[in-house]
Amino acid sequence: MHNEIEEKFHDECGVFGIYLNNLDDGFDAAKTTFFGIYALQHRGQESAGIAVADGHKIELHKGLGLTTDALNMKRLNALKGNIAIGHVRYSTTGFPALIDAQPMLFHYRQGMMSIACNGNLTNSVELNKKLSAEGAVFQTTTDAELMANVLSRNSQVSMEEALVKCLPEMKGAFAAVILTEDCLLGFRDPMGIRPLCIGELRGNYILASESASLNTLGAKFIRDVKPGEVIIVDKDGYRARQALESTQHAHCIFEYIYFARPDSTIDGTNVYMARKELGRQLAREHQIDADLVISVPDSGTPSAMGFAEQARLPFEEGLMKNRYVGRTFIIPSQALRELGVRLKLNPIKEIVQGKRIVMVDDSIVRGTTSKQIVQMLREAGATEVHMAVASPPTKYPCYYGIDTSRREELIANTMSENEIANFIGVDSLQYITKEGMLKCMNSDERNFCTACFSGQYPIEPESIE
Amino acid sequence: MHNEIEEKFHDECGVFGIYLNNLDDGFDAAKTTFFGIYALQHRGQESAGIAVADGHKIELHKGLGLTTDALNMKRLNALKGNIAIGHVRYSTTGFPALIDAQPMLFHYRQGMMSIACNGNLTNSVELNKKLSAEGAVFQTTTDAELMANVLSRNSQVSMEEALVKCLPEMKGAFAAVILTEDCLLGFRDPMGIRPLCIGELRGNYILASESASLNTLGAKFIRDVKPGEVIIVDKDGYRARQALESTQHAHCIFEYIYFARPDSTIDGTNVYMARKELGRQLAREHQIDADLVISVPDSGTPSAMGFAEQARLPFEEGLMKNRYVGRTFIIPSQALRELGVRLKLNPIKEIVQGKRIVMVDDSIVRGTTSKQIVQMLREAGATEVHMAVASPPTKYPCYYGIDTSRREELIANTMSENEIANFIGVDSLQYITKEGMLKCMNSDERNFCTACFSGQYPIEPESIE
Amino acid sequence: MHNEIEEKFHDECGVFGIYLNNLDDGFDAAKTTFFGIYALQHRGQESAGIAVADGHKIELHKGLGLTTDALNMKRLNALKGNIAIGHVRYSTTGFPALIDAQPMLFHYRQGMMSIACNGNLTNSVELNKKLSAEGAVFQTTTDAELMANVLSRNSQVSMEEALVKCLPEMKGAFAAVILTEDCLLGFRDPMGIRPLCIGELRGNYILASESASLNTLGAKFIRDVKPGEVIIVDKDGYRARQALESTQHAHCIFEYIYFARPDSTIDGTNVYMARKELGRQLAREHQIDADLVISVPDSGTPSAMGFAEQARLPFEEGLMKNRYVGRTFIIPSQALRELGVRLKLNPIKEIVQGKRIVMVDDSIVRGTTSKQIVQMLREAGATEVHMAVASPPTKYPCYYGIDTSRREELIANTMSENEIANFIGVDSLQYITKEGMLKCMNSDERNFCTACFSGQYPIEPESIE
Amino acid sequence: MHNEIEEKFHDECGVFGIYLNNLDDGFDAAKTTFFGIYALQHRGQESAGIAVADGHKIELHKGLGLTTDALNMKRLNALKGNIAIGHVRYSTTGFPALIDAQPMLFHYRQGMMSIACNGNLTNSVELNKKLSAEGAVFQTTTDAELMANVLSRNSQVSMEEALVKCLPEMKGAFAAVILTEDCLLGFRDPMGIRPLCIGELRGNYILASESASLNTLGAKFIRDVKPGEVIIVDKDGYRARQALESTQHAHCIFEYIYFARPDSTIDGTNVYMARKELGRQLAREHQIDADLVISVPDSGTPSAMGFAEQARLPFEEGLMKNRYVGRTFIIPSQALRELGVRLKLNPIKEIVQGKRIVMVDDSIVRGTTSKQIVQMLREAGATEVHMAVASPPTKYPCYYGIDTSRREELIANTMSENEIANFIGVDSLQYITKEGMLKCMNSDERNFCTACFSGQYPIEPESIE
Repeated sequence: MHNEIEEKFHDECGVFGIYLNNLDDGFDAAKTTFFGIYALQHRGQESAGIAVADGHKIELHKGLGLTTDALNMKRLNALKGNIAIGHVRYSTTGFPALIDAQPMLFHYRQGMMSIACNGNLTNSVELNKKLSAEGAVFQTTTDAELMANVLSRNSQVSMEEALVKCLPEMKGAFAAVILTEDCLLGFRDPMGIRPLCIGELRGNYILASESASLNTLGAKFIRDVKPGEVIIVDKDGYRARQALESTQHAHCIFEYIYFARPDSTIDGTNVYMARKELGRQLAREHQIDADLVISVPDSGTPSAMGFAEQARLPFEEGLMKNRYVGRTFIIPSQALRELGVRLKLNPIKEIVQGKRIVMVDDSIVRGTTSKQIVQMLREAGATEVHMAVASPPTKYPCYYGIDTSRREELIANTMSENEIANFIGVDSLQYITKEGMLKCMNSDERNFCTACFSGQYPIEPESIE
Repeated sequence: MHNEIEEKFHDECGVFGIYLNNLDDGFDAAKTTFFGIYALQHRGQESAGIAVADGHKIELHKGLGLTTDALNMKRLNALKGNIAIGHVRYSTTGFPALIDAQPMLFHYRQGMMSIACNGNLTNSVELNKKLSAEGAVFQTTTDAELMANVLSRNSQVSMEEALVKCLPEMKGAFAAVILTEDCLLGFRDPMGIRPLCIGELRGNYILASESASLNTLGAKFIRDVKPGEVIIVDKDGYRARQALESTQHAHCIFEYIYFARPDSTIDGTNVYMARKELGRQLAREHQIDADLVISVPDSGTPSAMGFAEQARLPFEEGLMKNRYVGRTFIIPSQALRELGVRLKLNPIKEIVQGKRIVMVDDSIVRGTTSKQIVQMLREAGATEVHMAVASPPTKYPCYYGIDTSRREELIANTMSENEIANFIGVDSLQYITKEGMLKCMNSDERNFCTACFSGQYPIEPESIE
Repeated sequence: MHNEIEEKFHDECGVFGIYLNNLDDGFDAAKTTFFGIYALQHRGQESAGIAVADGHKIELHKGLGLTTDALNMKRLNALKGNIAIGHVRYSTTGFPALIDAQPMLFHYRQGMMSIACNGNLTNSVELNKKLSAEGAVFQTTTDAELMANVLSRNSQVSMEEALVKCLPEMKGAFAAVILTEDCLLGFRDPMGIRPLCIGELRGNYILASESASLNTLGAKFIRDVKPGEVIIVDKDGYRARQALESTQHAHCIFEYIYFARPDSTIDGTNVYMARKELGRQLAREHQIDADLVISVPDSGTPSAMGFAEQARLPFEEGLMKNRYVGRTFIIPSQALRELGVRLKLNPIKEIVQGKRIVMVDDSIVRGTTSKQIVQMLREAGATEVHMAVASPPTKYPCYYGIDTSRREELIANTMSENEIANFIGVDSLQYITKEGMLKCMNSDERNFCTACFSGQYPIEPESIE
Repeated sequence: MHNEIEEKFHDECGVFGIYLNNLDDGFDAAKTTFFGIYALQHRGQESAGIAVADGHKIELHKGLGLTTDALNMKRLNALKGNIAIGHVRYSTTGFPALIDAQPMLFHYRQGMMSIACNGNLTNSVELNKKLSAEGAVFQTTTDAELMANVLSRNSQVSMEEALVKCLPEMKGAFAAVILTEDCLLGFRDPMGIRPLCIGELRGNYILASESASLNTLGAKFIRDVKPGEVIIVDKDGYRARQALESTQHAHCIFEYIYFARPDSTIDGTNVYMARKELGRQLAREHQIDADLVISVPDSGTPSAMGFAEQARLPFEEGLMKNRYVGRTFIIPSQALRELGVRLKLNPIKEIVQGKRIVMVDDSIVRGTTSKQIVQMLREAGATEVHMAVASPPTKYPCYYGIDTSRREELIANTMSENEIANFIGVDSLQYITKEGMLKCMNSDERNFCTACFSGQYPIEPESIE
């Protein structure tokens, strides 16, 4: 099911939650959540779901595919209630199954709860063993189901207390929302690896993976949820409880490089601005004698513009993207498979012909796409092609909710920079330095997770499968 | 989702399981199971599913609708393995959901298990409370999920031992099959309310709700599973263990009257033969001065033929059935809604005109269909219409897996026989007596559940909702 | 797309038309037509369509599959108007295509017309050549498109006059309905091969392939359309014009044997009564020493009951039919393909065991199904199986709208009766005689088309492909 | 079916054709055509179709929706042959119907032909009348069906001769491809209003609406088809015949402004380069005192970059586009409808805050989207918003195949520039002049159709509906 002509890392999920106090103006929780997760579609395209509570019960609607395919307006209209959570998912397993789609809905001794989670528990094997030994059964291998089991065992009290109590048991990188019959909760892992923020829309509170989701709804950004913090939203507004303190933060730096929308601001840093600064820093680190800067759209564009600005070179849209690519399909024969990247990107001959080009991209994973683009640029008449990459070489797998399952295919893991340049066929290849990259992050907290570049994992992974 | 022009009781499920030792001749477990549940389609039309084990893991494919719509041949072909269970389901809740479809698949401390169940636990509320108090979470309200939780808590040993140990904890009316990675198990409630039998196909053993499912596959009927018995099928063949003995049996008599296929033989009695004998007995109990016997097809036909034989009256197919009716659809306007029964049944004027008719049906639930049929017969020229019913008045709800949720609409619960005759518009109305009905059952065991006629429940229902 | 476990001849279409004068009571033309063709579903399962006129324009909705799958209630609700025609289709070509579905809608010099046709033009090649030479283009190979082209060339006058004028140009076997913006027309081939009748529902007139369609709507049968007659229905009621007289009629006798619903009466003869009489005649012609008569359901049942009555033998439902078979699916492996007939029919052992059986069927086409049934009956313990067929051997293809494309597979064309008996494996095989068959037709008109038995074609076929 | 949050003009179609001589390397005509029209997806999203010829017959597969939804790989694999044409369509009628989808397939006296057309005949009413009077019937209102009827009436000779003979009869703006059993033909209207070009891929010839379609396949651009020219491709290669000469050319200038892909080169002018030059010219014509230039993505981006370059202002991606918008859906309630543009575009506060902004767009149609964007920019902190439009005011409807059906809603038709600026809420509004626009076209031929700006129609429209 993977898009054959896409080879970037994949984020695994986006979460959203809303508690409506004001029901008088046409908003309803299910539909607002629909648009909330629609704005997070880039974080997961394989399933979408919405759970709605009305004070007494929770109802759920989920399906496979993009939000607009997975969810049915007639069914959404039937989901009545003032509190809702939503989820979009990218699955790492070949075949997406409805049962794994989130939110998941559980009956437990206090009633019902629904969970939507972005990220990965790193102690899931250990938790599973402990719970199974007590007789628990599992219908999926999702962390959401593990969390529900942990919480239900501590649910003599309110969900708020259960969550504050259980958070320390859950190791890893996660940002999740929980819905009970009458309450919305959200929480973030102790190092703040995965993002989550709070917003406000006409007096109603919202939780979302990214601030762009708030903007889409016309909501106001309040603040990021703090690492290790639990947010409770009910009829009295929202309140925060610090479930555990961490001495170290480790925001995922790849959110800025590639995952998040450019119009999101995460933990104090706007993504577009960060990408543009990465481009400027790249130009500071590497002088390239060239005529023109182009980007690999769309994710490479802000860095390319930053590079061009710093290098005082013109920037042009030298590679045009087919805006209809994105839906997965299988390319049938070998001859046609070669079309691969051409279906998605097409150089404009009038721009690149006779030019010495700097091509800026956000990252290189396998290198095969870059190789094809470089070949197309040369066929279109480029006299030199230099590649500048706005992140350091990606050498190490991620255990925190990002799909790097094709780890053995990480080109930087098996080749030197020279070998990569040869493989891709560029005249030169430049990566930003790790230090340069970190300098670009305009954040009060200088603590980022850079494990995919450095191999230094802030949390020990449970098992390396 | 209920068929507006169908008003009979509804069975809730059919189950099937097969263990293939001989894999050499084109059979495979998934596809054989497909045809096994296809033959049980009358027991449930709202979802279908198949789980397959290959000695190491279990894979599952299920969907909503009829077997041929719910299951996809391409997906079935991908289900490799030599052991499989299958399920067809009729849900009592308005909206059938995929998550409630069976078989359900569980991970537990010993690996994986899949369960498919026909029937109802009568102590489900009690079991749920007990398990929830220990921290269990539930994603559905199915008995299969409850059973999985009970079994997992006793799974230090083999599934066979766990099942033998846990069966006494499960009260109610049920027949179920369980699949582990390398074993097929089946069991039946202590009173034998719901049916289950064992068959053999070229040295491979099968479990099925009805013997007609065996016949369809060309398999040989071995015997019925005994009440309270656990059957284990593995590479060494099948063996039986009596998990608990019951002093009383209570086979559901409605299986013979309406639910089961006429070509099934359950607990020693062939269904067609039983229905025909019910018709004869009905004629013995009630002499009706008439010219012709007709049936309400299809379920009333054997009884009508028996009645005609005993009463020495001709039998004709006076009501023709549209063979394409059956798929649910919503009839749009009031004027068209009156078409209701006409869409399904049409009298043949040439047969009924000028005749005094006995119309035989298996049962009356709400009476509205009967009323419309009688009116059509009179319009077609019948001079008298007498109705003879091959079961006693159905006055009481069932708590053992049969959908009588429209209990308040049971006409025999609110009207006398005279009032019913008036409502339906017949010249006379005759029900078989309970004693007459029981006399027709050619069974070694004379113990049947007749609660829907008598209100005498063999097992106390937990709560009357 | 052919049902692998069905081997009977196939009719190709059913047509329906209604003109509503009274719009006051919830009826509307589109939905009434929906139920009208629903009752004709047995005449075609591959596509369904409805065209509706409101005095000014015609709108069309059609789709592939059964009526309930092909047509969408929301779309039907949007089809506003008081005149409508409908069609169900069985295609003889492997792959049913939407463009071939009927009704077809045409713009021509006078406005719009929609045509729905059952049957076959036998001079279609000639008509096509003539029209093509004048520059006509065709988007399908349907007779409806040919008819539209013929009519449009004569449309200087009203559709009524054009139709009366053009009918003599159209050779063959057909019954069709035409819709203009404000008029409903129907016509039947000059020999009356394909059926069409007129009905009345609360002052509104209806045209339909079979009277059972009228009954389903609660409409009154008025009369059959005469061979060569044109019926015009408009705001003034209906009127008839005899477009051409034929000295010979040739009603398709297979409508009585197999195609039509038993509850239809066609050209004066009720189908059920005809089938029953065929059974009686069969028993008169052939004494068989046996214990029991059974039928191959459903089409063989009335004849089997007639046979039993005449032969004074008991009749039983010895073969049970799975009521859910009918939807086409591909049976995957050889071992499972053998299940074929078992999926559809299952003998009841308790009935057939130890018995000498007469099995009555309406016809034999390829003989492979009969062979499998006989084998199943013997496995179930029948000591003798005699087969009695309520039609003569089918040796010749039909060119009048019936699918006998598997002509080379007509067993009676390549084997003697003895050889067929051997092939099928019966102890004896008896066909009704052609003379006996004709004697059973209770019709004022004694002229039937029996070409599939005799090879005597009432109209010369254009080309034998 | 219109996308509620899109208000630009819509092109109506893209066409493609290929004749494969070399079948040895994995290419096949159907699949190559699939990718050919995939690259033209922006020209039509409501249906897609492919017709394939193998020297003897033509087969067709078409469907509704985007190319990947409308066409089925299994069906495409079954389309064997070495010649193919394809089509993508945007319909101007509310409800897209399969019968109107192209290519259309016709049987005529010489065999089969399939036609795919982009554009509009301006004498379709006249042609329809003439053909109808001769008895022609039409199943659609497409120009392709009209063309087939015109050609079939002249088809005593080859399709090549028929086309050369008939082209003068067809008035209007069109570029079409025709497929016969063994030949591919293409032609373009006498003024060259709609685009069509010729390419070559490993010795095989291609016709396509835009050169970007050639690039996607790795094919070489040969030349544009000349106005009034007929191209014939067969086993001997391609040849051209000038069917009629026109003294005036009238290339649609809106192809450069908005319709075509930036990476296409049409009639000698690259679209990206033209757009960039339009931006520069706009800046030359209007000095605006501002801090920053942004674009309304994606179509406005090249002009915005050109403006920024000329005006020596920084360019930023101040409005971020949700890449998943594009699939049509109905926004349910009033409160949510206001989200409209927000779902698609989101300002980056960090970029626009405190800035005086020039926002460049390619055109303004109704102005409602611009109004919402301006409001969002002000909410995000922009201190001034000036709008610069890279085309003159669009005041007149198009009769040449472009959807301007919402003519009464053309804001420039009902308001002065000042009023528009007030309505949109900008501090100033600047349009490029018509003369300035024409100066930017780097074309040998200076003759463009600018009717939507000037009302001067190069061909008299037949009727203004």
